[in-house]
Amino acid sequence: MKLCVINPNTTAEMTAVIETAARSVVRPDAEIIAVTSEVGPSSIESHVDEAMAVPGLLRAISANPDADGYLLACFGDPGLDAARELAVAPVLGIAEAAMHLAAPLGRGFSVVTTLGRTIGRAQDLVSHYGFGRQCLGIHACEIPVLDLETNPDTAEILAKACAEALATDGSDAIVLGCAGMADLAVELSAQIGAPVIDGVAAGVGMLSAMAAMHLTTGTASGEFATPPTKHYRGLPPELDPR
Amino acid sequence: MKLCVINPNTTAEMTAVIETAARSVVRPDAEIIAVTSEVGPSSIESHVDEAMAVPGLLRAISANPDADGYLLACFGDPGLDAARELAVAPVLGIAEAAMHLAAPLGRGFSVVTTLGRTIGRAQDLVSHYGFGRQCLGIHACEIPVLDLETNPDTAEILAKACAEALATDGSDAIVLGCAGMADLAVELSAQIGAPVIDGVAAGVGMLSAMAAMHLTTGTASGEFATPPTKHYRGLPPELDPR
Amino acid sequence: MKLCVINPNTTAEMTAVIETAARSVVRPDAEIIAVTSEVGPSSIESHVDEAMAVPGLLRAISANPDADGYLLACFGDPGLDAARELAVAPVLGIAEAAMHLAAPLGRGFSVVTTLGRTIGRAQDLVSHYGFGRQCLGIHACEIPVLDLETNPDTAEILAKACAEALATDGSDAIVLGCAGMADLAVELSAQIGAPVIDGVAAGVGMLSAMAAMHLTTGTASGEFATPPTKHYRGLPPELDPR
Amino acid sequence: MKLCVINPNTTAEMTAVIETAARSVVRPDAEIIAVTSEVGPSSIESHVDEAMAVPGLLRAISANPDADGYLLACFGDPGLDAARELAVAPVLGIAEAAMHLAAPLGRGFSVVTTLGRTIGRAQDLVSHYGFGRQCLGIHACEIPVLDLETNPDTAEILAKACAEALATDGSDAIVLGCAGMADLAVELSAQIGAPVIDGVAAGVGMLSAMAAMHLTTGTASGEFATPPTKHYRGLPPELDPR
Amino acid sequence: MKLCVINPNTTAEMTAVIETAARSVVRPDAEIIAVTSEVGPSSIESHVDEAMAVPGLLRAISANPDADGYLLACFGDPGLDAARELAVAPVLGIAEAAMHLAAPLGRGFSVVTTLGRTIGRAQDLVSHYGFGRQCLGIHACEIPVLDLETNPDTAEILAKACAEALATDGSDAIVLGCAGMADLAVELSAQIGAPVIDGVAAGVGMLSAMAAMHLTTGTASGEFATPPTKHYRGLPPELDPR
Amino acid sequence: MKLCVINPNTTAEMTAVIETAARSVVRPDAEIIAVTSEVGPSSIESHVDEAMAVPGLLRAISANPDADGYLLACFGDPGLDAARELAVAPVLGIAEAAMHLAAPLGRGFSVVTTLGRTIGRAQDLVSHYGFGRQCLGIHACEIPVLDLETNPDTAEILAKACAEALATDGSDAIVLGCAGMADLAVELSAQIGAPVIDGVAAGVGMLSAMAAMHLTTGTASGEFATPPTKHYRGLPPELDPR
Repeated sequence: MKLCVINPNTTAEMTAVIETAARSVVRPDAEIIAVTSEVGPSSIESHVDEAMAVPGLLRAISANPDADGYLLACFGDPGLDAARELAVAPVLGIAEAAMHLAAPLGRGFSVVTTLGRTIGRAQDLVSHYGFGRQCLGIHACEIPVLDLETNPDTAEILAKACAEALATDGSDAIVLGCAGMADLAVELSAQIGAPVIDGVAAGVGMLSAMAAMHLTTGTASGEFATPPTKHYRGLPPELDPR
Repeated sequence: MKLCVINPNTTAEMTAVIETAARSVVRPDAEIIAVTSEVGPSSIESHVDEAMAVPGLLRAISANPDADGYLLACFGDPGLDAARELAVAPVLGIAEAAMHLAAPLGRGFSVVTTLGRTIGRAQDLVSHYGFGRQCLGIHACEIPVLDLETNPDTAEILAKACAEALATDGSDAIVLGCAGMADLAVELSAQIGAPVIDGVAAGVGMLSAMAAMHLTTGTASGEFATPPTKHYRGLPPELDPR
Repeated sequence: MKLCVINPNTTAEMTAVIETAARSVVRPDAEIIAVTSEVGPSSIESHVDEAMAVPGLLRAISANPDADGYLLACFGDPGLDAARELAVAPVLGIAEAAMHLAAPLGRGFSVVTTLGRTIGRAQDLVSHYGFGRQCLGIHACEIPVLDLETNPDTAEILAKACAEALATDGSDAIVLGCAGMADLAVELSAQIGAPVIDGVAAGVGMLSAMAAMHLTTGTASGEFATPPTKHYRGLPPELDPR
Repeated sequence: MKLCVINPNTTAEMTAVIETAARSVVRPDAEIIAVTSEVGPSSIESHVDEAMAVPGLLRAISANPDADGYLLACFGDPGLDAARELAVAPVLGIAEAAMHLAAPLGRGFSVVTTLGRTIGRAQDLVSHYGFGRQCLGIHACEIPVLDLETNPDTAEILAKACAEALATDGSDAIVLGCAGMADLAVELSAQIGAPVIDGVAAGVGMLSAMAAMHLTTGTASGEFATPPTKHYRGLPPELDPR
Repeated sequence: MKLCVINPNTTAEMTAVIETAARSVVRPDAEIIAVTSEVGPSSIESHVDEAMAVPGLLRAISANPDADGYLLACFGDPGLDAARELAVAPVLGIAEAAMHLAAPLGRGFSVVTTLGRTIGRAQDLVSHYGFGRQCLGIHACEIPVLDLETNPDTAEILAKACAEALATDGSDAIVLGCAGMADLAVELSAQIGAPVIDGVAAGVGMLSAMAAMHLTTGTASGEFATPPTKHYRGLPPELDPR
Repeated sequence: MKLCVINPNTTAEMTAVIETAARSVVRPDAEIIAVTSEVGPSSIESHVDEAMAVPGLLRAISANPDADGYLLACFGDPGLDAARELAVAPVLGIAEAAMHLAAPLGRGFSVVTTLGRTIGRAQDLVSHYGFGRQCLGIHACEIPVLDLETNPDTAEILAKACAEALATDGSDAIVLGCAGMADLAVELSAQIGAPVIDGVAAGVGMLSAMAAMHLTTGTASGEFATPPTKHYRGLPPELDPR
């Protein structure tokens, strides 16, 4: 099976972190294709960033049509429904995947994310996916996405934030709120003595399961069938997702 | 006061319908600026269409910085949170506005929209805005957006769909699920003997109220403050929303 | 258009504040009729007060049959459903109107009201209208309704309560929880740097929109149709609402 | 113990039915005081009727200050929160009591009520009390309240409506939606082979339990403490609840 | 009428406390049968304890087939649905009963229970029964079940925990979260000045009401009909519930 | 990694079906241990069956202490929380796993299960796991669990039920509601043209992902920490789970 992990943040260094996290957990008989989106913001930290990342992300899906599953490696899960219309194989966002794996690991989980301004989006995803009972709190460490790798204190700050979240929320697990934290999950888990779920690994795992079961996105209701053809006014050809 | 109505469907004929509907209800001391987005699909009927309409829509907001309110004239309310980050004045989507005005008019309302594949998006908006109790059903008439004006049977088909929705759902009011139906609200209401709410008129009315009260989008929580500056890889300058 | 604002608190001085607030935001082509209820408590600060205010309020509606909209100027929205049965034109409560205008102005709003004992009623309204996600907290300043105008520290106490509510709740906007605060919204907004929504102005704005759209309360489900005629035992004729 | 059952429908014949139902289930060591409200509509079938019934109902509570529990015998539970402020002993509405006893008797219950226009109020009570999962449907038999006793087909029509409700909703129990049906519960239960819950009997049972446990309405949060004294403008002294 | 109170904690001393509490509130014409389960853990303080208590509890029901109601005297309400399949008469859990009687006594209640590890189970019951709005907090006093009677400070520790819960949660009533606290409800109520609800007394009261009304568990949907006969592999005959 | 699949139905033939389904999707580097519970009902079709299956199921977990994950192969997910207390590695139920994999495959899914009397339990699981929005209907084919393998029409009856569920509910995917249907998922999916999710395969996939990520059940809140030691009265030693 072939799984395509798309980084809608257009920063190749971040894709490398994501790819390593994906490869570290994947089935031995599966292939990981890690793709950096060619159009959009260098990092995604606002609703505008999310919106502007989607055309590039959709084009990356169209450019990799034969995968058995697609993972969108941004915790805001931007463009998820649109991606499901374009792809035949299942598509997951990393927030979605992380929450699905975290929910069965205890009474509830806390999310620890980057900037406080993204908490609202995470709340909306929690509600949409149905984890309102299990998500007991969303906390920001206030490290910008692209500083996660370069800030020497990232691991320490995150460990502190995770431990505080467990105590404050009375939660049993931590969900990491950014693809750029993917390399820290195992270390953080050891430090705080609680499961720490990275959405990249979670997504690769769920997509592997779906692919092994030969599952695809359902189209019976029509919502996720191939979208009607449209004239796109003013759109540069290199942005057309189809 | 100056209200900016943006049609993210890039079809000028549709903008004309929207503009007329807006002008027919606006305060005598208010000005309507109707704008057709310059980039994006000719009509919005899928998640992909919505996603691809947002960059053009955001650019239209940036190009009209001094309005006292912005109305996004597509029933999927695409790009709403992103638009709120870019604008100082309030921003409404027409689905949002229509539901806010419909809710106090009875026990519940039904939505009558274009294609069945858009019902899921409408359900998500209903949940997000909090109208799960009041929205008693969402129905499709299966007329594509751009056929609304040209299909000679549009009014009749819609009247039938609205009347059936009232009876099936036990509702007291109808919300029209497309900006392209804006010119039909008054006529439909007379035919079915129930209030019919067009989101364009509703949005203009709510924005007028907000402008008269000198209200702006709040930024205290940080979510809707000006977004951080970003490098946009591969984005043609004419699509940059800032 | 003619909008009727009814103060169910039977205190004329308070009606004057409400009328001024209403006039300050109304469309130039609209007329405001401000009415003080002739029967009921001087101020409404308990469930008993609300209940005892309703007969007078309903009678005020019957006495003003030709308005294009009715606003009930008490934050408990007493008698709202009954008023909708009696009137043909739309009826709004000020809590309802304020929340509908506050919801689209950010992630969430806080309510700042008078006495703590009224918080429960406000919670019930929040749930009923569907704003459970958006209303992030309800706070009392513990100033009785009729002291709002005479207490020299009202503005200062309220500004402090509003600022604390924003910080505690992580909200983006403030809803004022009493018609007697209507004159303070603009000043408070400037002080705290966030939108402050007064329900009187909000209600006038929403009713103006509804009137411009020729909307009335829907009666298709039967709930808000004219109620069956009844014999009223022991009721003084001046209290009969019909 | 002494339990006060108040009929806010001002029709003495209906109070007789209610009193008989109450006496048939009460503890042998308890006394039932059945009171017909002296002010208000002859029967309650609209929001206006409910609102106009409350002053008389509150006065009946004040006139019977030494009961160990109060039951409001109208399925709309009008004036319940206000009554709780006035009384020290617990106060229940019959809709509330019926639902509390019906919920543990199976997967879910159906409500069978009088006129269809009252269904909305019943839905609001279901939500408010928390029985949204358990209440699987609300159905009207379209017999007006005061015809229940005189219509020779009442029992047959109700039995048919109850049986259909069980089948349509997949429910395990029936809640009768009017105090005027109190005498029919046992007979209906035998006919349809399912538990049928009358709110008058349910309320007497729950109040008996509360009284035996020496429970009163709690006032710690302040909401149900004695309300502040007020000047009541224009209110005839015989309507003053205090 | 005959009411059967089953203690699934297999500790006879605890059953004595429960029986006394039951008798202190029961109707003079009713008989209490208090039964200690013969198989299972000495006290129930974990999910494993609950699971292992159920076979004994079900057998106790089968061994007492002619009761008019059954009360399961453990606050986790273990085996409730299974018990309903086996019994014809109504079955209540003490958590369920306590919450049903507490809900109408104010804005909301707090639960004060034994060990913190049982809070999750109590949250699940709150959600399942529909008291998410009314239950404002669940607090642990960290006294193990079997120490409640022997710890000389139990009353004092509980009084403090109850008073703090009222203040922290803004609640109007306290629900005691363990059958072993049944003897303390009246004393605690006097100390904290708020209603304190013991589930044993509440359950006896609700079952009395149900029995007086001749109610049984409904079987129309089939869920609570007699279960299909099964071969039980490896089960000692003394554990077979049938 | 080693995954332990426990069949709490004590029928070895059914375990064989489950084991085959598990092996067909598992990672090449993982081992499946399929265990038939030694104590309990031959099949699980009622609340009593579920309750009586749990001691044997817990004992099977204790007897296999070194697995990297445990799957409970009964769609009622009996004993799940208790199992989480006993095991260090993650524990999933097949209903839980199937719903987590079905949710991202479209707008919503339908469940097709065996007997109608189990629908209530499935509804409770849907609510508890948070899939109230996504689960659009639960349908019974009325084939008893142990007849699934022997009834020659099983595949045909199920295909018809699945197709009808898709159409009636407007869903995009089917969740199979019994471990005994595990061998039919791929065939059914081909027949109805929609994804069909078997919980055994889904559970193996999710546990594989969790194991690869080195995740365990979290114990920070205390709820799922090792339970306190207890004296078990009357319990045969072969049923003691510890």
